[in-house]
Amino acid sequence: MIRTHDAGSLRATDAGTTVTLAGWVARRRDHGGVIFVDLRDGSGVVQVVFREDMDAAHALRNEYCVKVVGEVAARPGGNENPELPTGAIEVIVSDLEVLSEAAPLPIPVDDDVNAGDDIRLRYRYLDLRRSGPAKAIRLRSKASQIARTVLHERDFLEIETPTLTRSTPEGARDFLVPVRLQPGSWYALPQSPQLFKQLLMVGGMERYYQIARCYRDEDFRADRQPEFTQLDIEMSFVTQEDVIDLGEALVKALWKELAGHEITGPIPHITYLDAMARYGSDKPDLRYGVELTELTEYLTGTEFRVFAGAIAAGGYVGAVVMPGGASQTRKELDGWQDWAKARGARGLAYVVLDAETGEPRGPVAKNLSEAHLAGLADAVGAKPGDAIFFAAAAEKREAQELLGAARVEIAKRANLIDESAWAFCWVVDAPMFEKTDEGGWTAVHHPFTSPNAEWIDNFETAPDRALAYAYDIVCNGNEIGGGSVRIHRGDVQSRVFDLLGISAEEAQDKFGFLLEAFKYGPPPHAGIAFGWDRVCMLLSGAESIREVIAFPKTRGGFDPLTSAPTPITAQQRKEAGVDFTPAPAAAGTAGVAAPVESK
Amino acid sequence: MIRTHDAGSLRATDAGTTVTLAGWVARRRDHGGVIFVDLRDGSGVVQVVFREDMDAAHALRNEYCVKVVGEVAARPGGNENPELPTGAIEVIVSDLEVLSEAAPLPIPVDDDVNAGDDIRLRYRYLDLRRSGPAKAIRLRSKASQIARTVLHERDFLEIETPTLTRSTPEGARDFLVPVRLQPGSWYALPQSPQLFKQLLMVGGMERYYQIARCYRDEDFRADRQPEFTQLDIEMSFVTQEDVIDLGEALVKALWKELAGHEITGPIPHITYLDAMARYGSDKPDLRYGVELTELTEYLTGTEFRVFAGAIAAGGYVGAVVMPGGASQTRKELDGWQDWAKARGARGLAYVVLDAETGEPRGPVAKNLSEAHLAGLADAVGAKPGDAIFFAAAAEKREAQELLGAARVEIAKRANLIDESAWAFCWVVDAPMFEKTDEGGWTAVHHPFTSPNAEWIDNFETAPDRALAYAYDIVCNGNEIGGGSVRIHRGDVQSRVFDLLGISAEEAQDKFGFLLEAFKYGPPPHAGIAFGWDRVCMLLSGAESIREVIAFPKTRGGFDPLTSAPTPITAQQRKEAGVDFTPAPAAAGTAGVAAPVESK
Repeated sequence: MIRTHDAGSLRATDAGTTVTLAGWVARRRDHGGVIFVDLRDGSGVVQVVFREDMDAAHALRNEYCVKVVGEVAARPGGNENPELPTGAIEVIVSDLEVLSEAAPLPIPVDDDVNAGDDIRLRYRYLDLRRSGPAKAIRLRSKASQIARTVLHERDFLEIETPTLTRSTPEGARDFLVPVRLQPGSWYALPQSPQLFKQLLMVGGMERYYQIARCYRDEDFRADRQPEFTQLDIEMSFVTQEDVIDLGEALVKALWKELAGHEITGPIPHITYLDAMARYGSDKPDLRYGVELTELTEYLTGTEFRVFAGAIAAGGYVGAVVMPGGASQTRKELDGWQDWAKARGARGLAYVVLDAETGEPRGPVAKNLSEAHLAGLADAVGAKPGDAIFFAAAAEKREAQELLGAARVEIAKRANLIDESAWAFCWVVDAPMFEKTDEGGWTAVHHPFTSPNAEWIDNFETAPDRALAYAYDIVCNGNEIGGGSVRIHRGDVQSRVFDLLGISAEEAQDKFGFLLEAFKYGPPPHAGIAFGWDRVCMLLSGAESIREVIAFPKTRGGFDPLTSAPTPITAQQRKEAGVDFTPAPAAAGTAGVAAPVESK
Repeated sequence: MIRTHDAGSLRATDAGTTVTLAGWVARRRDHGGVIFVDLRDGSGVVQVVFREDMDAAHALRNEYCVKVVGEVAARPGGNENPELPTGAIEVIVSDLEVLSEAAPLPIPVDDDVNAGDDIRLRYRYLDLRRSGPAKAIRLRSKASQIARTVLHERDFLEIETPTLTRSTPEGARDFLVPVRLQPGSWYALPQSPQLFKQLLMVGGMERYYQIARCYRDEDFRADRQPEFTQLDIEMSFVTQEDVIDLGEALVKALWKELAGHEITGPIPHITYLDAMARYGSDKPDLRYGVELTELTEYLTGTEFRVFAGAIAAGGYVGAVVMPGGASQTRKELDGWQDWAKARGARGLAYVVLDAETGEPRGPVAKNLSEAHLAGLADAVGAKPGDAIFFAAAAEKREAQELLGAARVEIAKRANLIDESAWAFCWVVDAPMFEKTDEGGWTAVHHPFTSPNAEWIDNFETAPDRALAYAYDIVCNGNEIGGGSVRIHRGDVQSRVFDLLGISAEEAQDKFGFLLEAFKYGPPPHAGIAFGWDRVCMLLSGAESIREVIAFPKTRGGFDPLTSAPTPITAQQRKEAGVDFTPAPAAAGTAGVAAPVESK
């Protein structure tokens, strides 16, 4: 090592020791000939002092990389800095070597400066010298190690699965990779190791995990990256409860060690239907109440067109209460209409209850009968001074989701969120299927998800109500992980494919190799995957997953640092075999039945 | 858990316990109504017994996945199997549930059967149920955990670097990935995280590691895969010795825990030039001697055309001795000529020493002078009965490499290799540059490799002799890791680029973002990368890296299991934006100077 000590490790007890330090000039202050420098390395910061005779120190600028030899000395009385772990001492430099110089900085290395994301990412190597970004990357390293410890204690095997693989059914989002040595043939980058981890279970590996890179070529709405990481887990001979127990062990260890938060007792379970009914979301934020109330029955017979229409259509009317919402200005209340429209709704009906009298007012109040108005506050649990927001739709879920979004917005606007709180839940009993626009059925999770015990023999009789052994874990309204028990019985898998309208031929073509594997004694198995970027984001208190990724891309999938992606040259294009036209014989899809390549 | 006990864990002390087991039917034997089944799970095998009344057991076939409930009982006297950890007991089954059936097996799940590689990979999930393949995958998981432990004890951070990145200078081997959202733009899959780990050092991360997936689209000569894994490491403020110390700590921990081999004392260092001179290889196998002898001086004045020509050209003549090689038949000696020709040499000159008299014979003997023949045995350290092989060339390295290959072949043919031995060495002081065919210079490692202290100020004066701080670690003739100290001074980097004929413009275009980063106080840094597939292969005693990869590809990059890679549909092609023609303005290479994308 070029240094003998870490800068941030020096304490009063080191006084008198000669040390060699190496790091960066974080700050320089001249005091009449004497120069003080905050020297920063990975361990922290220490004050180093250049006396009058150290002329070379005058050349130092911010972010020069330097090596200094000096003696640790107690700071003169009154000059201690109690906010700095090294604040009791300073290092009197006897020798200085500039290891490398720094040009004027495009962004300051300063925790107090907020540069734009693009410039931060372009100069990420400077950004990472700031304590906040560095801390996030360090936390992620720790999080991975904590997870590995939990998993290895439970006999899990870390197994690497291929990332150059075959295009999957959700192929439209696959990144494709041309293969130079087999022109006209393409690999796909996996959206997850799903198929491979199931094959590993068939292979008797029993307990698999991987912190796996996954890829998805899609619009980066919200906070997405074209490549992302999941903690991917699969287990054999287990039930849903075993996976949930493991998931809890992981979450408890992570939050205890990295967020200082002890999760006591089991994490509550809530069914998907309950979550939708009470919170209007399949990832409810349980840091606050503000639950939804269904009013379909209560409002039966209403003449208010909007509600009556939904009820007549066999739909749903519901409400959510904004505590103190009656005090909003007209402009604020109008703002809710804009908010709803931005979400694609027609608006957000509301009633406000007079703070003094509790009298219901507002546009909807005029349309409701005396009786409906009289019992309204009790029906929704509102008090004088509150606002009641309504949603009604022929599709229950549509209305619930609008109210669920309103609930989140209410919590923000009414300041109901305890930012220091952690609220976890498992959302279980997810539906198996949902209707497609064409009137068929599609799998809510993936087509290998097992119906639960109640539905395994009869899911065809009511696909809209059939439930799966599928579970998500939610933290503060963020889905941080999810998984399912997989189908391991060929007969059940065939019935699911039938319902989904996937022909035997299509199934064979899409994932024939998995179905083939399932012919040979597949074990019961189940798994879960955690969105590792999101988990680390929450643990680090960051606002975006980009903060916990060493070199993230911007929303468009662009890397401001390397300028990737780039055009390619004609030569590269030619060598990659991009434009090779395969002979007709080779153009058929190479399914499992294809001949095995000879060497 | 579906089971209460692991099958392989049951012992005599468990007798009397009722257990539920789940696993696979490894073998079934009928003994007059009583059926014995070897039940296998991840922990091992146990014998389960179905008495006459268990009719359902008749349906069991190999690799059915079953659950049984039964009572552990001591085996009847004389029926114990001491070769099985569970051999003292058996489980008398009272309840059987077939979890899933198995069709007739395409390959037997049997350790004693050697199926071809293609069929093994196509049914890898059955292959992995065999104890050998399963053990290799388990070993790899342990190896990774051991490495992580060593690294975390030393305060390394695990940091994930991007795999969707920018094409690198060695671009011809890059896999390219079209980007749907930016048609005409392509990512490249990285051949290594080299540039990113150096950027992390500039970012002050100081100690980085990653078990990183890397990609190379090239011919799969020897034992290569299109995607492979390296244990990638980089450190700041260190010297070569620090990296070597860390590398040794890793290797010692791995071999101790996984191969039961204690490496005592430091691993020997040998310079690159010494390795070439003594072993004709930059990755010498030190499990045996058979060193090369240079004869250039000894043979000065010879009239033998082949040797004289090499000497006159300022080249090299050398020899290697095959102990007992004189007893080879004429056919065997001719076989060496074929061997040499297959390597691209013209042949392999030799002299055999008569086992009785020590008299030199053979084609070369006739061409050497009395004096040269008389001293030959002493000059090369040969005894009567040995064979001496010669190589001569104007290019020293060419002749040394031929002798080095002959050395390895001699060791095999003469049975000199102790297969149970482990011999490690560090090959250090590698050359900086080698001549290109065009008469210029190219970097032996990569253009960021630092000249050593002796050469840093004057490598231009003798590029052919300049040495780098570059080091490889070799195990039994396999390079298992390699790395270098990096250049952190801009002036040195510029001089290296100048020598390599890389213009400022080209450098800017190729790795402008790294050069830009190096303007801002880069620390001295160095690193190493271990070929993780190869390390695990050696530790598991396997012959191929494919044995330690869960789902490897064949030599052609083909996956017999999924049939990847495959042709893509016109629709996929269109969606991937493969054929988008960028507008001229966008066609320029987007270097560091390109505008930062706006969101």
